[in-house]
Amino acid sequence: MTQTLNIAIAGLGTVGAGVLKILNQHADMLSARCGRALVVTSVSARDRNKDRGVDLSGLDWFEDPVELATAANVDVVVEVIGGSEGAAKDLVAAAIAEGKSVVTANKALIAHHGADLGAAAEGAGVALNFEAAVAGGIPVIKLLREGLAANANDHVFGILNGTCNYILTEMEKTGRSFDEVLADAQALGYAEADPTFDVDGIDTAHKLAILASVAFGAAVDFGSVYTDGIREISAEDIEFAAELGYRIKLLGIARLNDGGIEQRVHPCMVPLDTAIAHVDGVTNAVVIDGDRAGRTVIEGQGAGEGPTASSVVADIMDIARGVVCPPFGHPSDQLRLLPTLEQDSHEGRYYIRLEVLDQPGVMADITAILRDQEVSVASFIQRGRAPGEQVSVVILTHTTNEGRMNGSLGLIESLDSVIEPPKMIRIKHL
Amino acid sequence: MTQTLNIAIAGLGTVGAGVLKILNQHADMLSARCGRALVVTSVSARDRNKDRGVDLSGLDWFEDPVELATAANVDVVVEVIGGSEGAAKDLVAAAIAEGKSVVTANKALIAHHGADLGAAAEGAGVALNFEAAVAGGIPVIKLLREGLAANANDHVFGILNGTCNYILTEMEKTGRSFDEVLADAQALGYAEADPTFDVDGIDTAHKLAILASVAFGAAVDFGSVYTDGIREISAEDIEFAAELGYRIKLLGIARLNDGGIEQRVHPCMVPLDTAIAHVDGVTNAVVIDGDRAGRTVIEGQGAGEGPTASSVVADIMDIARGVVCPPFGHPSDQLRLLPTLEQDSHEGRYYIRLEVLDQPGVMADITAILRDQEVSVASFIQRGRAPGEQVSVVILTHTTNEGRMNGSLGLIESLDSVIEPPKMIRIKHL
Repeated sequence: MTQTLNIAIAGLGTVGAGVLKILNQHADMLSARCGRALVVTSVSARDRNKDRGVDLSGLDWFEDPVELATAANVDVVVEVIGGSEGAAKDLVAAAIAEGKSVVTANKALIAHHGADLGAAAEGAGVALNFEAAVAGGIPVIKLLREGLAANANDHVFGILNGTCNYILTEMEKTGRSFDEVLADAQALGYAEADPTFDVDGIDTAHKLAILASVAFGAAVDFGSVYTDGIREISAEDIEFAAELGYRIKLLGIARLNDGGIEQRVHPCMVPLDTAIAHVDGVTNAVVIDGDRAGRTVIEGQGAGEGPTASSVVADIMDIARGVVCPPFGHPSDQLRLLPTLEQDSHEGRYYIRLEVLDQPGVMADITAILRDQEVSVASFIQRGRAPGEQVSVVILTHTTNEGRMNGSLGLIESLDSVIEPPKMIRIKHL
Repeated sequence: MTQTLNIAIAGLGTVGAGVLKILNQHADMLSARCGRALVVTSVSARDRNKDRGVDLSGLDWFEDPVELATAANVDVVVEVIGGSEGAAKDLVAAAIAEGKSVVTANKALIAHHGADLGAAAEGAGVALNFEAAVAGGIPVIKLLREGLAANANDHVFGILNGTCNYILTEMEKTGRSFDEVLADAQALGYAEADPTFDVDGIDTAHKLAILASVAFGAAVDFGSVYTDGIREISAEDIEFAAELGYRIKLLGIARLNDGGIEQRVHPCMVPLDTAIAHVDGVTNAVVIDGDRAGRTVIEGQGAGEGPTASSVVADIMDIARGVVCPPFGHPSDQLRLLPTLEQDSHEGRYYIRLEVLDQPGVMADITAILRDQEVSVASFIQRGRAPGEQVSVVILTHTTNEGRMNGSLGLIESLDSVIEPPKMIRIKHL
């Protein structure tokens, strides 16, 4: 174990350059901690001449990242290209086939192909580490796979997308609309030009599918994640939430229930007096409920050069020290295949906002529908009075199931006095 | 690596019994995750006949725990006896000398003898794991040693003693005195009959010395920890803190500064709008500032059977998987020997409460002393007016150093109109 560990890096964007910087600047500390030197021998990226603030002289340059898998002088391949298909996938598969360990920050790749790639890595006796794929600088994969490995977990959830959390935090602070805050976030570089992956919850869903697999010893099942984003959250909902003692957060939630698995991503109202309600801006947080350790909460930086590179380098260090865990904590052939619990069977409390004509009988119609659907009302706010004009009505329900809730909302929407489609936000009990 | 890992457990109190329960009840899950079976072969405890809710039949019983080190069929020794000297120390040293890996939950042992025992373990090529020694079920040692291993850290602090945090939380909730709440905590089993180790900050200091070592790559130096407990915190101080926007928490704080190390345990006022202010009851929390990952915060259960046993079993699992890290992250012979920064040189803000006679000139005398000592006043509260009688005066300072602060307090105490020794609480900037 005193030999040098030779590293190839595919992709020299923000994360790849950050990894090179840590390996250069902390070389002595890292080699002391690992008992051997960590040396980058080879790199691949689109543009050889771009200034990345790191010295590439002396490194072997590859135009085709997939060739890194078969390059001489490479023990570990670091894939930070991104994307679930194409070069990233080809490179990871090829490296494993060559008997090389892989470190990746690629959540889409692991969410879509983690089961196959994990099995291949186990078969080849190499590591497939993806700490940076979930929650950036927060070492939550190691936490689940090792630190809390003695626990059977039944619940994991968190704030997994910094862009959405930044937008929701700013909307609350400034009272502005989603579109305005998104435009600002794009100008500041906190949101992509095409923000779909972030604001529609897909990025959170990728990360949740990975977390759920490691937390529950279940096969990654991205296709079963119920996914809803934050585009429909209005300044008005945020204001009502605050009035009712809640904040609105985009959460990824996975739960084991009666032998099935529930995986869902959607905005939630979380009580103001909980820690998760105070996770603001680009910070991420993950909550894990284990049968022995109880509840563990970890918060940190979910994105950015330093945090993401911190996790990538920690993964490389594990390989340098000879640690090879099953990628998802459990051996691939023992990962459970759990039935998906339909979102309609979800039990919870709900916030409903209705825009109605303020006229006699409208509330009687609405409450009759809820009664007939067996949805019990916990509280009720009508903001102001304006006979004959539009007013907002907010209802908080007691615990009910989502099928009944959706049935009620369909019937309510069909009432003449209800002007807009009802808004519904789930309340998260913590 | 497909052989059984044979385990000896020394000490069958709460933690030892909890470890046995996890190993029995989760046997299949654990062996799947480790690729080999984890089997307890031998135990040692004081009373063979006590009912611990676990089946000891078929296990080899040893009257003398130290004999476990040389017992046949033992690969790993788990030490959960406790205490920095005596059987615990003898057993750990003997097991390492026999080439056996050791898992311990013993913070006093590691704080006092960790440097020597760690060096011995490294020399013997065995693991010395002590996750459960710090913050119970929170895997913060692994977090520092592995998950955040790519970072140079300069600041680590936390709430490390559940008993103190419970007492402070209850004092705030109920307005009762320290003595009353302590008596209740003892009746409920949250505090020991002799509460010294907890309430005087010694337990926190043990944990802090270990955390600082792993966080900074420095040799454990328990003797240099400045330690002050919570006995002097009054209901009045808690009330003033709330009025000023703070909560009082017992923190362990370690910081690297200008080549020196500051390690201190004392009550702090923490701003109400921070996460750490909301860590209540027996929960523990640790905050780590790394140069790449930024700030990471982890919260969880700091004590109790399940959480502590969760960490002990995770340590055993690492050994089963062949993971051997230097005990303190860095090789023992490269651990830094850092000069201790004297508490007098500490820079910070301070809360001072004075009980004074409400008479003309008293404030002029006090503020003149502060001016002469170059301590600048940020705010000032006098609660009520009672000419000629006792009133409370609270002063918050701007940043100053502790030497000047102590000088001022000595002079203030000597004033005739100051009735009681001044109370001083440090304010923690987060």
